[in-house]
Amino acid sequence: MPDQTLPLDIFAAQNVVSLPKPRGGEDDHFAAVAEWLQSIPLEKTIGACLRQAIDEVLDGQRTGRFDVDDLEKTEKTYLGTKVEIIIRSALGLKKGPRMDYLIQGREVDSKFTIGKYWTIPREADGHICLLTSADDHDSVFRVGIVRINNSILNLGENRDGKRTLSAAGRQAVRWLVPEGKLPTNILMGLPEQDRVAIFAASDGYRGHGNGGQLRTNELFRRVQRKAVDRNTVLTVARQDDSPKRVRDARKKLRLEGIIILGHQSSHPRIARDLHLTVPEKGSWIAAKVTKVTSSCDRPKTEIDGELYAIAVTGETAEAPGTY
Amino acid sequence: MPDQTLPLDIFAAQNVVSLPKPRGGEDDHFAAVAEWLQSIPLEKTIGACLRQAIDEVLDGQRTGRFDVDDLEKTEKTYLGTKVEIIIRSALGLKKGPRMDYLIQGREVDSKFTIGKYWTIPREADGHICLLTSADDHDSVFRVGIVRINNSILNLGENRDGKRTLSAAGRQAVRWLVPEGKLPTNILMGLPEQDRVAIFAASDGYRGHGNGGQLRTNELFRRVQRKAVDRNTVLTVARQDDSPKRVRDARKKLRLEGIIILGHQSSHPRIARDLHLTVPEKGSWIAAKVTKVTSSCDRPKTEIDGELYAIAVTGETAEAPGTY
Repeated sequence: MPDQTLPLDIFAAQNVVSLPKPRGGEDDHFAAVAEWLQSIPLEKTIGACLRQAIDEVLDGQRTGRFDVDDLEKTEKTYLGTKVEIIIRSALGLKKGPRMDYLIQGREVDSKFTIGKYWTIPREADGHICLLTSADDHDSVFRVGIVRINNSILNLGENRDGKRTLSAAGRQAVRWLVPEGKLPTNILMGLPEQDRVAIFAASDGYRGHGNGGQLRTNELFRRVQRKAVDRNTVLTVARQDDSPKRVRDARKKLRLEGIIILGHQSSHPRIARDLHLTVPEKGSWIAAKVTKVTSSCDRPKTEIDGELYAIAVTGETAEAPGTY
Repeated sequence: MPDQTLPLDIFAAQNVVSLPKPRGGEDDHFAAVAEWLQSIPLEKTIGACLRQAIDEVLDGQRTGRFDVDDLEKTEKTYLGTKVEIIIRSALGLKKGPRMDYLIQGREVDSKFTIGKYWTIPREADGHICLLTSADDHDSVFRVGIVRINNSILNLGENRDGKRTLSAAGRQAVRWLVPEGKLPTNILMGLPEQDRVAIFAASDGYRGHGNGGQLRTNELFRRVQRKAVDRNTVLTVARQDDSPKRVRDARKKLRLEGIIILGHQSSHPRIARDLHLTVPEKGSWIAAKVTKVTSSCDRPKTEIDGELYAIAVTGETAEAPGTY
């Protein structure tokens, strides 16, 4: 993350600073904040922050939840605080004396909504707000900034004295990321029957073994040629060692002709050869493969002296022993 | 964690079950829940759960916070939800149809307070509540169970319609852990001057290096002969690779006669020899040492053919090159 240009010694130990108000009129302040935000890779950074915040509050590893609609009211409220904290940390911002962030010496408040409507507290009046929203069902998010004043808020207050941004208010927002691509929530995007099958894969399982392993196996049977992130594995396995679950799934699914590629050793090469997304650290991609000859004109890869391609319907799947 | 004795196939995929009400009167249900809770290592387990919940919501790595008094209102509210989730996961419990947990087939609600007063919602009337509280300043916590009814609640309601447990109510609680030892919050327990010095260790630091390293060094200068957990290092360093920060502190502080022991290689032996707590995985213990002869009657340890003891005031501190 880029450093701010403010001298570091104004930052006190407790991360809250007081400093002389920068010169210039309201428009200058707004422009300075907008300019700084546009100087950083905003879509990638905020998209990752929102994904992280949603995943942490869902707490899939402990709860098995993947749908924000399943959050309790206190969790939805807290999600806004988590977004504020994660963005502050990712952007290397400091807290302002009154508002959530200092950006180029200007106070900026963070407002997040998981829906369409931001609720604005009275104390934000006159302040610049960084507005973020995320729709985890459609994998989109928005980032904008606006200066709050009475004329852009609806009249009605909720019982905390907060008011929503009006239609005129939404017009007044300067959208910095009008339609960002939220990193995908794999489980959310699956057909219902696949999700049910994955979570039910350990039903009726007895003995002292590992039901989470059965669910992880089913995940990679049903999600192929698509990167699966660590959090998805944790949510399915409900255990903390996701790499171990994936390694064991790799052994098991080999017998069904499925390979699971990670970010290490020969895996990136195999992924590239097969025209699959190359997995980043902490993500994996599965595919059903079959042995082919050098005359096969589909993307193919050499493993242990044999050639493999993605299996198409009707072909016998066969995976290499080691890769 | 011990398994519950209920057959597993009553557990639906979504982790919520409906099942016939167990037989017996109210007292039998209460006794069954108490008995199960007393059959597990409750103090150790719940103590770890409360520590984990508090640390997660403080989010020290991102915020530098270590004091629950610095939590915002929404975070304090959410802390109760986090405690509920972590206890459910640690105890391997399922959600009940209406309440937070099913324990031996009985519905039990989770109620946590960071203060002294539990607030009870109307819908808990007639239900068994698992009460937990934590005081992170005094490092104590309590666990009890009580069946909620009108006679044990104070009259006044807050605006959410919740009421506090009355004095009679507190008498009615069956305390399962009346005064548990909460795993220590190292930073909270330090003298103010040490805390300030640790967080200020990177003040005025310039250049592209690592201010978090300077703070980590200062942490181990000031906290000696006491186990320092991973979360404390993360909170001080504000970075995600705490083992790396500790390794670098080890190199630096060696020049000042300070050793930092972990859980691996010769470290547990050295810790035992010096009568220090043997660090568990993800924790470390520092000590200033000095070379001694075999006639020294203080606890001593051999490293690289030399004998070392904890340095006392006035002695020249000297640490081994490798250990």
